[in-house]
Amino acid sequence: MHGAVEIETPVFELKDVLTGKYGEDSKLIYDLEDQGGEKLSLRYDLKVPFARYVAMNKITNIKRHHLARVYRRDNPAMTRGRYREFYQCDFDIAGQYDAMIPDAECVQLVHQVLSRLDLGDFTIKINHRKILDGLFGVCGVPLEKFRPICSAVDKVDKYPWEEVRKEMAGLSDMTLLYQNCQSLGCESKVVFDMGLARGLDYYTGVIYEAVLTAGQNQGKDGPVGSVAGGGRYDGLVGMFDPKKFCLGLSFGIERLFTIQEQKQGALSEKLRATQTEVFVAAACKRMVHERLKIISLAHEAGIKTESSYKNNPKILNQLQYAEDNQIPLVLLIGELEVEAGVVKVREVTIRDETTVKREDLVTTVKQKLGTK
Amino acid sequence: MHGAVEIETPVFELKDVLTGKYGEDSKLIYDLEDQGGEKLSLRYDLKVPFARYVAMNKITNIKRHHLARVYRRDNPAMTRGRYREFYQCDFDIAGQYDAMIPDAECVQLVHQVLSRLDLGDFTIKINHRKILDGLFGVCGVPLEKFRPICSAVDKVDKYPWEEVRKEMAGLSDMTLLYQNCQSLGCESKVVFDMGLARGLDYYTGVIYEAVLTAGQNQGKDGPVGSVAGGGRYDGLVGMFDPKKFCLGLSFGIERLFTIQEQKQGALSEKLRATQTEVFVAAACKRMVHERLKIISLAHEAGIKTESSYKNNPKILNQLQYAEDNQIPLVLLIGELEVEAGVVKVREVTIRDETTVKREDLVTTVKQKLGTK
Repeated sequence: MHGAVEIETPVFELKDVLTGKYGEDSKLIYDLEDQGGEKLSLRYDLKVPFARYVAMNKITNIKRHHLARVYRRDNPAMTRGRYREFYQCDFDIAGQYDAMIPDAECVQLVHQVLSRLDLGDFTIKINHRKILDGLFGVCGVPLEKFRPICSAVDKVDKYPWEEVRKEMAGLSDMTLLYQNCQSLGCESKVVFDMGLARGLDYYTGVIYEAVLTAGQNQGKDGPVGSVAGGGRYDGLVGMFDPKKFCLGLSFGIERLFTIQEQKQGALSEKLRATQTEVFVAAACKRMVHERLKIISLAHEAGIKTESSYKNNPKILNQLQYAEDNQIPLVLLIGELEVEAGVVKVREVTIRDETTVKREDLVTTVKQKLGTK
Repeated sequence: MHGAVEIETPVFELKDVLTGKYGEDSKLIYDLEDQGGEKLSLRYDLKVPFARYVAMNKITNIKRHHLARVYRRDNPAMTRGRYREFYQCDFDIAGQYDAMIPDAECVQLVHQVLSRLDLGDFTIKINHRKILDGLFGVCGVPLEKFRPICSAVDKVDKYPWEEVRKEMAGLSDMTLLYQNCQSLGCESKVVFDMGLARGLDYYTGVIYEAVLTAGQNQGKDGPVGSVAGGGRYDGLVGMFDPKKFCLGLSFGIERLFTIQEQKQGALSEKLRATQTEVFVAAACKRMVHERLKIISLAHEAGIKTESSYKNNPKILNQLQYAEDNQIPLVLLIGELEVEAGVVKVREVTIRDETTVKREDLVTTVKQKLGTK
């Protein structure tokens, strides 16, 4: 929808590329065994490989999306959608652009995706690392402790506001960002949250995080946490090219799936795992070649079709299979039908049967599927 | 089309699961470093993890497809589509079924996919491991050398045919398979090839391999080899449940892509990397908020839309971008248009411009996109 290209980076990176990018969490990186050659590690997220890719290939401007798995030697918590191998869904922009236009697009994207997923109300918290840095300066935090000390944020009300304000280089960015979000029609869910810090070391500017505000946020073992987050991370690509910046976001799609599954479970909707439209069934023995011919005919016409792998399957088992798998149509043949050159078309949910000539079969099936 | 479910297995397996499954090639497996916990390896193919999954979860019947990357510490050859990390596209069936129906479906699938990819003529070679074993027995090959010695196949014409024939338990399977292929309409490309052996140790029954027969088979550095292959590998899952069988195939989709790219290169077709339908451009300065509003309007209507990230981009650069990226429509605004509440809709290839009212914009854009 936003004109991003899809790029894929390898599942492993040189170990050096990942070193020093994730603070405390670096201990969760999976390393590959030294089998001769370079030292490799499994990717921990999709951002660092993206920045490496942009820098290495000297790419001027790029907007990309990437849906792929990342790896963390962490303690899994299945019911909250936390795994050692899990998907991230990233959208990133790198290049030289004017302030806060791409940033506003990222906020808009979070707004669009969460609105369309229809998981209930949500909030997009926004903050700016430079505002946090300003606060830390005022609070007397030593420079090297800026990143680990986000918890100091709440001390700020002991200082006069003007003193704090002049340290906060990020405030003009926030005004601009809010105006752009207004033009993009996504400002309604945005809140400025001075308590938002984001764990990763590499963020340098605007940061954001989306949380569901309604009951959907509750997993079996407590709240699922943020479902999307991101920000500006110029430093990652900037170590190679200081004029270039990078920003982007990640959707926590495992968490979103967990929430969606719970919602569907509550509605007792059953998700179909296949797309089969037609099941070819036989009412008597020795029909295997007739069934295969009908499959071939249906596939040829682009109709998603399957049949039993048994030579002489039982009719009740075949009908049960179609019902269990929510296959809308069953094509039924027996000796009489084969002799007469006809096929019975059965609509599974309403249990209605029509007999059609073989030459009209494809047209009839397509009509019946079209009306569903 | 065939009613397969998509399942995903992890990118790593316990090292023990992969040990002893790939013969000589086991040395190409990537191991993970021992960081405490279990010894892990990156998957080498998708078949062994599938068999492990079926056995571990005690699955009775399953038909699945899986498109994912596998890992081999091999010497890459880019121009022939050989990489250390590459995609395989697998289709597999496990369960208890009657002979040669699922096998024929695999052959049909290869036939369907290669026909629709339209890469030129192809052949599906078929053989049976039991036929090879029969040959080896007749030739006096010791049992433990059966797997490594497929090259001995050509010695067979020194022996009387009847003596060879009675050793070949697989021949009745081949007749049945061919009859089923006929009913499925995919027999025309099938050839029985006694020289086909397949490298991997785990095959036990029917084996097949598809090769392109025309010039498309030529990569820059020689022929690309087979583009799909598979067969019966009952033993992999049978070590847990001897009544269950397993079969399936793999498409070499990197190779297929390499061939398709060369074909497209020859026709000088350019592949689009994005799906953008509309580019919003400004003819003068200070239009950023107007552009963002139009993006929001278009996205709301499901139209794939992008614009420049600069506050005041140059008009020629914007039009050039749309042309370079094959974006079919440009929506152009300037001060006059904003005042009059209109937008210029420009069709990029024919350079035709219409001016439409803001409220008719979405309808007009959808009409113009619909006619393309």
